[in-house]
Amino acid sequence: MGLNFNFSTATQILFGNGTVAKVPELLNTYGRKIMLVTGKNSERAKPLTDLLSSTSEIFRFGVEKEPSVEVIDEGVKLARKNHCEAIVGFGGGSVIDSAKAIAALTPNAGELLDYLEVIGKGKKLTEKPLPFIAIPTTAGTGAEASKNSVIYSAKHKVKVSLRSSLMFADVAVVDPELTLSMPSEITATTGMDALTHLLETFVSNQANPFIDNFGREGMQRVSRSLLKAYETGSNLEAREDMAYAALLGGMALANVKLGAVHGFAGPMGGMIPIPHGAVCARLLPAVMEANLKSAKSQNLKYIISKYDEVAQLLTGESNARSEEGVQWAQQMVEKLNIPLLSAFGLTPDDFPVLVEKAKKASSMKGNPVVLSDESLMLILEKSI
Amino acid sequence: MGLNFNFSTATQILFGNGTVAKVPELLNTYGRKIMLVTGKNSERAKPLTDLLSSTSEIFRFGVEKEPSVEVIDEGVKLARKNHCEAIVGFGGGSVIDSAKAIAALTPNAGELLDYLEVIGKGKKLTEKPLPFIAIPTTAGTGAEASKNSVIYSAKHKVKVSLRSSLMFADVAVVDPELTLSMPSEITATTGMDALTHLLETFVSNQANPFIDNFGREGMQRVSRSLLKAYETGSNLEAREDMAYAALLGGMALANVKLGAVHGFAGPMGGMIPIPHGAVCARLLPAVMEANLKSAKSQNLKYIISKYDEVAQLLTGESNARSEEGVQWAQQMVEKLNIPLLSAFGLTPDDFPVLVEKAKKASSMKGNPVVLSDESLMLILEKSI
Repeated sequence: MGLNFNFSTATQILFGNGTVAKVPELLNTYGRKIMLVTGKNSERAKPLTDLLSSTSEIFRFGVEKEPSVEVIDEGVKLARKNHCEAIVGFGGGSVIDSAKAIAALTPNAGELLDYLEVIGKGKKLTEKPLPFIAIPTTAGTGAEASKNSVIYSAKHKVKVSLRSSLMFADVAVVDPELTLSMPSEITATTGMDALTHLLETFVSNQANPFIDNFGREGMQRVSRSLLKAYETGSNLEAREDMAYAALLGGMALANVKLGAVHGFAGPMGGMIPIPHGAVCARLLPAVMEANLKSAKSQNLKYIISKYDEVAQLLTGESNARSEEGVQWAQQMVEKLNIPLLSAFGLTPDDFPVLVEKAKKASSMKGNPVVLSDESLMLILEKSI
Repeated sequence: MGLNFNFSTATQILFGNGTVAKVPELLNTYGRKIMLVTGKNSERAKPLTDLLSSTSEIFRFGVEKEPSVEVIDEGVKLARKNHCEAIVGFGGGSVIDSAKAIAALTPNAGELLDYLEVIGKGKKLTEKPLPFIAIPTTAGTGAEASKNSVIYSAKHKVKVSLRSSLMFADVAVVDPELTLSMPSEITATTGMDALTHLLETFVSNQANPFIDNFGREGMQRVSRSLLKAYETGSNLEAREDMAYAALLGGMALANVKLGAVHGFAGPMGGMIPIPHGAVCARLLPAVMEANLKSAKSQNLKYIISKYDEVAQLLTGESNARSEEGVQWAQQMVEKLNIPLLSAFGLTPDDFPVLVEKAKKASSMKGNPVVLSDESLMLILEKSI
């Protein structure tokens, strides 16, 4: 069938300890008026704001949680009113997704709902977004390298993506030192999110040899460093590996569809307030198991061999077989003390709706096999 | 020292057989007036022009050989006069470099010499280039994924680069089928150019783990397919591998400095009319040998281990040692019947000037070791 792939990523990627110091110079080319999007505690952005104070006029915008339609519209209004010339997102995935959406919408007429699929008018962005710099302070979502923002609508109880190839960051500045202070539970959940991106794109029915290399490199780094970063947050080498793995996962998911874990995660996040990374972590082993069972029952050798390789990458054993990869993932979730999904309020009553929604999710289209309703139910039962 | 890298590439990469069919749709977003840059035989571009005839107004511009200052200025005049809205380069490295430079200069006031380093005023590009689509029909230069155009000045007898991070292609369309008709001697020389990009960036003193994966993937493909593509031009799988390897080499060289082979190749190409790929092919084994000798005399274990891995990638033998990589390269050059450099008119009288120029070349700064004048002379003696 031949080698076929598409690839796009952030216009420029700067990776390394201390790279945040390059941001003022990068911003100089865009203008003086900068909107800085941060988490609720904007003090965390001090390493950046100290650098910018003499060169930029900063308009701060704090994002408390996963971005909602209202929050994005508010940010866009602020950026338009102050004629901001560039947007900087400094924080976790929610912050970066917010900044990305604000950068995209500010020069495009109207409001967010005009551009959202499913719950809005689904218009296409016509104007090029404002220059946008993404500076992650967690290591997981890969939002610095992807072209979509995940946005929550309370009214519709769903999470939907604003997505456009115009939305890649102009510069992704990935500075592992910024993740040193990340709390251990966030290290755990975001790290499992990164692993899920790497693994789901690697076994995806859209997988290709180019992106496979990102998966291999990333999974090896997660294997050797996620637990270390969780146990000793000050371990800079482990933080480096995880920041790199998260970036690779973002580059992968922007170019290859994910799978059943993310097929479930979108709807679940819309229905219940539950950290995305925890959802991924708890679903991942059960999805791996279900996919493998299905692949084996159909003797799909290519998929089984991909899962064998996953097992080898994760365990570091060159002879490991697919089942050992599932065990590795299951044990990692336990070692990282990630709560069961029931702890966040998920109940079996939610399962039928979740299965229906997951089947229609965009990510599900990348799953290597088509899972039956029974298999999907079983995944939820094992994860709760 | 930590993991540090920068990465940029073409905004969008489309790889696969038949992808050239997507070009009309891509051009629609840019406008109707298109300048099409091709080689001297513009009939070769028929697979593309047939597709475009109904949707675009095409202004053709034929490039006979490696682009000169005069040719680029002529192309820019044509594009400005006809208000072209996008530039398409369809051909080998010279064609793509020409199209890239024309796209860059058309919206920027003045002429090429205003922007060239060393021999010109070295001004920076201030305006964003015209939209530019690169469609390679050879598998070697990687020009579709790099940010520079190599331009020859007859007056100064040098080749210099016009280089800017604004110059990456908007879309690189890499369609292996377009390389099926490439003559065997061009397959050989361009293929060795691709190998040199992959190998020099892999052992470069700027090498990093992210780009190393491009080198590994690419060298394996060259190893298994260059000779096949040379011997049987219609072997589509081998063509695919080589097109992919060339793309990976371009992505690598745009982000990591090369080494002594390219340090010599630039000045040599300015002094003598000699195909760039033939220069690379003939110099590569001698440069590998010189670098290894130097690394071993200083016991630079990391560099030696990199060359060991090169040997393993090229020979396919997991225990191969560095010297076997040099042998592999030497034997490949012979199997591909690439002429000695003396066949193109290089004489020992040229050596002292070449050594002086090579030492100052930008690429030489990426060489893993500093080579003495004696070593540089020896490389030339072995390659002539």
